[in-house]
Amino acid sequence: MSHGKTENLNGFAQDQSVPPELLSRLNLPNDLKDASFEELERLAQEIRAAIYRLSEQRSVHFASNLGVVELSIALHRVFDFRKDRLVWDVGHQCYPHKLLTGRFSRFDTLRTRGGLAGYPDPAESEYDLFHTGHAGCSVGSALGLACGDDLSSRLGVDAASGKRKAGSEARYSVAVVGDGSFSSGPIFEALNHAGGLKQKMLVILNDNKMSICKRVGGFGRYLDHMRMAPGYLGAKVRIRRFVEKIPPIYTGLYRLRDMLKAGLVGGALFEDFGFQYIGPIDGHDLPNLCKYLEAFKTSQGPVLLHVLTEKGRGFPAAEDDPTKYHSSSPSKIRSGKSKAGRRRSKEENITGRRMASVVGVPRTTSDGADLELSANSKPSDSVLKDGKAAFTYWAQKAIYQSLQKDPRVCVIVAAMTQGNMLEQARADFPDRFFDVGICEAHAVNFAAGLAKAGMRPIVDIYSGFLQRAYDHLFQEISLQNLPVVFALDRAGLVGADGATHHGVFDLSYLRPFPNMAVVAPGDASDVEDAFEFALRRESPTAIRYPKATTSRIERPRAPFELGKAETLRRGSDGAFAVCGGGLLQTALELAEEWANHGDASGRKLDVGVINARFVKPFDSDVILQPLRDGKPLVAVEENMLSGGFGSAALEAANDEGLNTRALVRAGAPDRYIDHATREEQLSEVGLDRDGLAAAFRKALERAGR
Amino acid sequence: MSHGKTENLNGFAQDQSVPPELLSRLNLPNDLKDASFEELERLAQEIRAAIYRLSEQRSVHFASNLGVVELSIALHRVFDFRKDRLVWDVGHQCYPHKLLTGRFSRFDTLRTRGGLAGYPDPAESEYDLFHTGHAGCSVGSALGLACGDDLSSRLGVDAASGKRKAGSEARYSVAVVGDGSFSSGPIFEALNHAGGLKQKMLVILNDNKMSICKRVGGFGRYLDHMRMAPGYLGAKVRIRRFVEKIPPIYTGLYRLRDMLKAGLVGGALFEDFGFQYIGPIDGHDLPNLCKYLEAFKTSQGPVLLHVLTEKGRGFPAAEDDPTKYHSSSPSKIRSGKSKAGRRRSKEENITGRRMASVVGVPRTTSDGADLELSANSKPSDSVLKDGKAAFTYWAQKAIYQSLQKDPRVCVIVAAMTQGNMLEQARADFPDRFFDVGICEAHAVNFAAGLAKAGMRPIVDIYSGFLQRAYDHLFQEISLQNLPVVFALDRAGLVGADGATHHGVFDLSYLRPFPNMAVVAPGDASDVEDAFEFALRRESPTAIRYPKATTSRIERPRAPFELGKAETLRRGSDGAFAVCGGGLLQTALELAEEWANHGDASGRKLDVGVINARFVKPFDSDVILQPLRDGKPLVAVEENMLSGGFGSAALEAANDEGLNTRALVRAGAPDRYIDHATREEQLSEVGLDRDGLAAAFRKALERAGR
Repeated sequence: MSHGKTENLNGFAQDQSVPPELLSRLNLPNDLKDASFEELERLAQEIRAAIYRLSEQRSVHFASNLGVVELSIALHRVFDFRKDRLVWDVGHQCYPHKLLTGRFSRFDTLRTRGGLAGYPDPAESEYDLFHTGHAGCSVGSALGLACGDDLSSRLGVDAASGKRKAGSEARYSVAVVGDGSFSSGPIFEALNHAGGLKQKMLVILNDNKMSICKRVGGFGRYLDHMRMAPGYLGAKVRIRRFVEKIPPIYTGLYRLRDMLKAGLVGGALFEDFGFQYIGPIDGHDLPNLCKYLEAFKTSQGPVLLHVLTEKGRGFPAAEDDPTKYHSSSPSKIRSGKSKAGRRRSKEENITGRRMASVVGVPRTTSDGADLELSANSKPSDSVLKDGKAAFTYWAQKAIYQSLQKDPRVCVIVAAMTQGNMLEQARADFPDRFFDVGICEAHAVNFAAGLAKAGMRPIVDIYSGFLQRAYDHLFQEISLQNLPVVFALDRAGLVGADGATHHGVFDLSYLRPFPNMAVVAPGDASDVEDAFEFALRRESPTAIRYPKATTSRIERPRAPFELGKAETLRRGSDGAFAVCGGGLLQTALELAEEWANHGDASGRKLDVGVINARFVKPFDSDVILQPLRDGKPLVAVEENMLSGGFGSAALEAANDEGLNTRALVRAGAPDRYIDHATREEQLSEVGLDRDGLAAAFRKALERAGR
Repeated sequence: MSHGKTENLNGFAQDQSVPPELLSRLNLPNDLKDASFEELERLAQEIRAAIYRLSEQRSVHFASNLGVVELSIALHRVFDFRKDRLVWDVGHQCYPHKLLTGRFSRFDTLRTRGGLAGYPDPAESEYDLFHTGHAGCSVGSALGLACGDDLSSRLGVDAASGKRKAGSEARYSVAVVGDGSFSSGPIFEALNHAGGLKQKMLVILNDNKMSICKRVGGFGRYLDHMRMAPGYLGAKVRIRRFVEKIPPIYTGLYRLRDMLKAGLVGGALFEDFGFQYIGPIDGHDLPNLCKYLEAFKTSQGPVLLHVLTEKGRGFPAAEDDPTKYHSSSPSKIRSGKSKAGRRRSKEENITGRRMASVVGVPRTTSDGADLELSANSKPSDSVLKDGKAAFTYWAQKAIYQSLQKDPRVCVIVAAMTQGNMLEQARADFPDRFFDVGICEAHAVNFAAGLAKAGMRPIVDIYSGFLQRAYDHLFQEISLQNLPVVFALDRAGLVGADGATHHGVFDLSYLRPFPNMAVVAPGDASDVEDAFEFALRRESPTAIRYPKATTSRIERPRAPFELGKAETLRRGSDGAFAVCGGGLLQTALELAEEWANHGDASGRKLDVGVINARFVKPFDSDVILQPLRDGKPLVAVEENMLSGGFGSAALEAANDEGLNTRALVRAGAPDRYIDHATREEQLSEVGLDRDGLAAAFRKALERAGR
């Protein structure tokens, strides 16, 4: 399995300063065609070194990218993706691909404002077909591309203009999917469709052993078996050819023939879907990778190529703990470097029997600050800095306490145990902790069943990823009126992960669901109260909080009751009504400053601040009082303005027939916000201090004051 | 395969008046335990006769229910579903289940206002666990139930109260899934999870051969193979036991053992997910069904029981054309009765080689009026009655024409070819027509790929079912800004199918997506223009229309332009702004009447009617003019009031700082609307003439006029 050059390649960790000689000199990806394998392996070293250098500067996806260096090189050598089609599932493993497609000179801008995106982005390169970030879509998209290319080729239509064109050329369509994403429903739906169509396409299963743990699912175990008995591929191909010659004399033999072929060649499951299965092959063996990719060109129908890779390949600490190094912050990288001496045995690598310490594949990265917290997931207070910590921290603490208090409480995550800081909860309550893999829709169905059986499930999924379960939130939860608690982390703008990862739709998509309470806690104390409140309820409750830090705001606390807002600061000149923490702090600071020092023009203002707590039911009594008094009101939210908290205010005001002129809404506009820091993004959409101040001035003006 | 009593059972079609002797006399389901198989088969006859009699009265699901009569009886005989758990996937096949669980006396109220629902409904019976209607959720829910029951049993917690309880009892969890739903992603996600957990549960694959057609997918072909070589089950069980005794001396043998077992026993795919596969068995053989269900009780881990049933069993015309008789209207039943003499041969039934004339399993029923249209799907004008036809008709006509005109146009449906009246389009443009099965998420991913390849896909999916693809609409379509056209049929209230099938969320869920245009055509001409407009656009467009009929409204037509509304009637006393046809006609009639005869109090009113056409971009200029003039404005929509068209009006008005007091919104309230006729539902939510009149009076009052 292991290729002779392995040791050389792994050497880079000790020599991460390999200069980008080929990366600077070659015309990529064109020059890959004529390069020698020695040059390609040197290039692999340079790519790993470039990723390593970047990881010393800022938080990036790390281990996953080190794993696909050779695969990316082989793909761009064998195919021409200006005409052929390449879709990376999720897309976080696209760094080598970016380096190989003319983006080396801008590589150090990755994940910064105006720089390269951390995911594929068509705005950046013709080699990036879709702007992605969520798992499970690649096979469907690549199948669509294959069919569309076939159609336009057969029809003789120029795809772009729709006009007839002279000739046409063969185009190959390739999807690369990690084993973590492979359990996602849409992958199976697409395999089924492709197999049924017998459409020629290549699906590469990038099996980096990150979903081994049995708890993740039967499919992971299935892959495990194949890894353990990989056999000899040459023999397999001969067996396949022999078996395919058995004449299907009568129908009964069809099954026997298929059984023989699939059983002996492996990948019965994929063969059953109508795919030709090839593998597993070593994903770090460049000549071999190129050979099998070339072979696909002359094959018929859909092919699944099972490639074994190592996450963190070439960086020993990351190979040993790929979850920790899935994404990386500079401090983690530096600490890992010192541990680089320790290497696990080749034996373990090959058999895959080493038990991963994680259940699923964490899919997103975080900014440095958050990662510092993630690294310590125990519900201890050691992560507190001046009483502040991430909302995620307060949420997991509340979840942990509820697991202790109530034996009916269960926790469901979708391959996000680490991102949700729930490792301790999983360790201490294994019977009531369910990681269902990257299957958000199923997570919600499953929660419905648990709730119906009398349990009290908490579904802890990022706001953006819960979008996957929209219809299940409707049918299985809201329509049944089941007491399921949803913890929507990363609700709002998320920083460097960019447009695919923002959680700016949830208020709009949750509000229309009957029976659903939608809560946006204002601070750490609210988070605790929100979970306690939600677990007492006999109906569903969504608790959403941003990727921000918060503390306990000191004040005489109003009781946490269904549909009740809390006035944090009274003011005679109007008010900010703020939906959720993070921004609540900004509004409070602004109001304090205006009261003490006056606004930019020196005018002293006495502005109230309302902690909305509930988006649904909406507290008209408290929140709309400024409008009743003819005073300015600014509704503040980290959500799309369309259908969000401000709209809830407009709807409630309209229900009473109030004049809404003095209401100004601050939130995310009707466009996508690119990757940048969270602060840059908040500022860009007017959700920083200046933005809120401008919104209030507008409201004042409208109120005629 | 075929059971000895078959001919007797089939006899009922000639004697559908079998009196409900046992149905009236027995205490069901309790008495099933002690009944003889002769009695059970008599009961099956009575159930079929009852369903038949109901189908003569009104539109009901027909063929699917005739197919599961014996299965339902066997389930309720073997299990006790007051404690055990039964989840029917989709739920349209629950009529025998309802008859067997104490609802015979109310059976003739099915699908009428205040009567029994056409789907399972917890409000009706403790035997209905979830109110369902969408496909693919049963296995996940049943798995959640199994885990929750195990947990509360182990914890000794009473599920309902959360308090400690004395004892606990074994509970079995069963999901019944049709082969059409089986291709749905969430099913695979749940199989994977259950297999990984090794959780004891029973999944019954109700294989009624409705997804045979190769175009539906590789999985359908896989089932086909198993059907063709079913073998002898007794021998299979012995083989399984023998193979399981092979010691796994070293890891390589694991795979060989699995291969032998799966290959010889069948169901390798399910075994690969970690399920024990049993089947296929005859789903009309009561003693055999009971035997296998009993056997599950003493088995370990998850079991998949593959049951072969015949849709329409016992009603020859429905057996021959189960798609036509999936749901039925009285007129179809009567015409089918006369054809009952023709029977297909047993040979064809058993081998399953008879090519079904349909690609997928239509999942919803329609009201009688619509079915009359569905029966004739050719784009001829024969369905027109006084120039009126269903929106579905006008849409398919526009789709057919666009296929003719532009070789880039492709059509994607999700097992709804008939419901969308697209059979002719499929027949005439097979290369550009894709039925992806019940996989809406995949349909959208697939469309993204086609669009990226230069094609112009039209995704034709009911509004409610498109909810399944919410996240894909976001990431694959809106974020990429791809020119995909969505045809959202059944947007609004749908009548007898009830709460699961209403399409009342789409305006709220589509509006927040950047790049997306949201169109609600006002009449038949608008439908044509909307498709033409959408196919010219380089960005995504959603066209939504209700389950209603419409004609071409005679008027000088305003050009159909992005974000432009059309004033159908000018009025000096304010206006109705109506989002979409159906209600537009109501508003026009009301305005005409008030102009000619005055309102209820005899007061003549000159009220304008605006055909909004676009919900996004919103035409502030035209629609908000009454507010600028201080006049009443009523925004009318078939969507939730939260985040819908009225909210779009409020947001647009607020953006300009208008006073919104004189705006009144008419739409669906924040609760679920039960099954009834569409007219009853519209009236219930104030979307009939009286409701619109009341809304206008309120707006008048608010405007101080």
